[in-house]
Amino acid sequence: MQAVYYEGNKTMTAGAAQEVKPGPGEVRIRVAFAGICGTDLHIYLGHMDQRVKLPQIMGHEMSGIVENVGEGVENVKPGDRVTVMPLHPCGECPACGAGHGHICHKLKFLGIETPGAFQTFWTVPAFTVLKLPGQLPLDLAAMIEPLAVACHDVRMGEVAPGEYAVVIGGGPIGALIALVARARGARVLVSEINPHRLELLEKLGFETVTPLETDVAQLVNERTGNAGADVVFEVTSSQSGAELMTKLPRTRGRIVVVGIFGKPPAVDLHRFFWRELRLLGARVYEREDFSRAIELAAEGTLPLQALITDVLPLDRVEEGFRLMTGGGNAMKILLRCDPQAEAEQPNLQP
Amino acid sequence: MQAVYYEGNKTMTAGAAQEVKPGPGEVRIRVAFAGICGTDLHIYLGHMDQRVKLPQIMGHEMSGIVENVGEGVENVKPGDRVTVMPLHPCGECPACGAGHGHICHKLKFLGIETPGAFQTFWTVPAFTVLKLPGQLPLDLAAMIEPLAVACHDVRMGEVAPGEYAVVIGGGPIGALIALVARARGARVLVSEINPHRLELLEKLGFETVTPLETDVAQLVNERTGNAGADVVFEVTSSQSGAELMTKLPRTRGRIVVVGIFGKPPAVDLHRFFWRELRLLGARVYEREDFSRAIELAAEGTLPLQALITDVLPLDRVEEGFRLMTGGGNAMKILLRCDPQAEAEQPNLQP
Ligand SMILES: [Zn+2]
Ligand SMILES: [Zn+2]
Ligand SMILES: [Zn+2]
Ligand SMILES: [Zn+2]
Repeated sequence: MQAVYYEGNKTMTAGAAQEVKPGPGEVRIRVAFAGICGTDLHIYLGHMDQRVKLPQIMGHEMSGIVENVGEGVENVKPGDRVTVMPLHPCGECPACGAGHGHICHKLKFLGIETPGAFQTFWTVPAFTVLKLPGQLPLDLAAMIEPLAVACHDVRMGEVAPGEYAVVIGGGPIGALIALVARARGARVLVSEINPHRLELLEKLGFETVTPLETDVAQLVNERTGNAGADVVFEVTSSQSGAELMTKLPRTRGRIVVVGIFGKPPAVDLHRFFWRELRLLGARVYEREDFSRAIELAAEGTLPLQALITDVLPLDRVEEGFRLMTGGGNAMKILLRCDPQAEAEQPNLQP
Repeated sequence: MQAVYYEGNKTMTAGAAQEVKPGPGEVRIRVAFAGICGTDLHIYLGHMDQRVKLPQIMGHEMSGIVENVGEGVENVKPGDRVTVMPLHPCGECPACGAGHGHICHKLKFLGIETPGAFQTFWTVPAFTVLKLPGQLPLDLAAMIEPLAVACHDVRMGEVAPGEYAVVIGGGPIGALIALVARARGARVLVSEINPHRLELLEKLGFETVTPLETDVAQLVNERTGNAGADVVFEVTSSQSGAELMTKLPRTRGRIVVVGIFGKPPAVDLHRFFWRELRLLGARVYEREDFSRAIELAAEGTLPLQALITDVLPLDRVEEGFRLMTGGGNAMKILLRCDPQAEAEQPNLQP
């Protein structure tokens, strides 16, 4: 069995993995596919060196098959096709007490605070393991975790049928938010600058805009009878995104902050006052978002396959990271952790 | 009859006022008291010269007695003791269409976009005029407009009984927010640096903190079992206020932006993500807030009298503005527009 280790300083090495027998309440999964997340990229680039312990096995977006289970595990059994909701809340802090375990003050995120899925076998607490519907291909199942993020963001943004939504930033999460918002009946505009991403988003049927060429606020006003957008998702974590987000919403419109800002941007709080805007931070997902993501993926109506731009074997992980930093057409890159994992080909919905 | 005019360049002159006969649907009020608002101060300091037309009669926080009414006016009659909700929405824009007339895209604010209350007689649209309960003294009634702001802020912040609220900035609006939040059953901490204001707030029974001396976040954590505040009101419109506001709330806690920021401050959007915070802009008030403010003032349980630090005759208006910029003990300064206006003395609740 194999694992890839982040060694610090933009270095990943493939090596032998330690076998972790599942203890009581634990499940050992043969990992089929694991996606490279923006967070993994942050770790790779050294931005989170104080949070991880070297060498770190990353990875938290995955699918796989249960290999064996520890004592007392009842929710899954060997052979089950599964994914993992990689949150381990403490159960005791004020956030957990308030029912916000997904943003627990002492949250352990599997693959950051613990070893992750970039290995042949991954051993995790049973309560994080969720069964997959039979018809869902395992490559698409590796998209459930980021899809759950999008489900959470759209739910937090209270997107309603017929509403006008703008997504600032059309990377993997932005594209998933756009898809989920559209599935809820919203009209969606995506603002993006990367030409490859713009092309893909248009192929997926979205109206797009490039803020460098077009006055996005003016376009949104045209599309909404001068009212403004009902809801705006900020997914770029850039100063320009933070500036754009306050220009677009209608009176009492919502802005969902999805992007993870490295430093505090200037934010037009006067506009919040003037239009009584609302800003909502959204982080990861709750169980209902994960369930919804599994449901949506299994329905087969979302073109998830179109977002997977590469599937690489586990030992070519560094190539995957390089593709993600290259500014090319990379959207979601999957690692095939089990060489035998076969992806069935789903129908790509136009 | 007399009026005071803002002539630009920090100059106010008292002079003869033009008599304005109430047209159809209008009401002419003999103004008893009129408060000097922070917004008036902004106008006086020249910050809003592009919005006002010189010479500008300011003033929108007032009480008075109906002198005469124009054709078709049925909601009030001569002799009625009244106050004014100084908003004139267009009725046609998308905000008005969405039921947000108080933040109409083309809102006329009486006393800014129209002549205001700093005169002996004020003629306004009848729909802005609200009757006062008989027992409410006219000086306290001039506090209803800012009290309605506080009622709106507290309602927008969804303050619930037993919640822990922090008010950043203990000036007139901050103090009123603290009083209204406490009346709703919240525990309230006020952060302020002016020693006169701190003294007054403590006399009113609030716990106070000076952010220059004490780590406010640590104090809030101590008071809330490390959970954080349920709701935070930012009333300073300062960079330091914008920095403090994100440090205090619990997971999914609310921040209400009341302060009018002159330029976009740096805001820790990462904290919004991390704790799933919510930021709510709040501007002026809706009719239900004004009604609630009248009700609260009439109940006599709020120590409104304690917030009135000076009552000056109309022609000493400039002294009032100077007191407000002086950094002294000034909280709310009223102008006595009708020399005969007598304030009954209410009971000051401890
Ligand atoms: Zn992820
Ligand atoms: Zn916890
Ligand atoms: Zn005012
Ligand atoms: Zn309007």
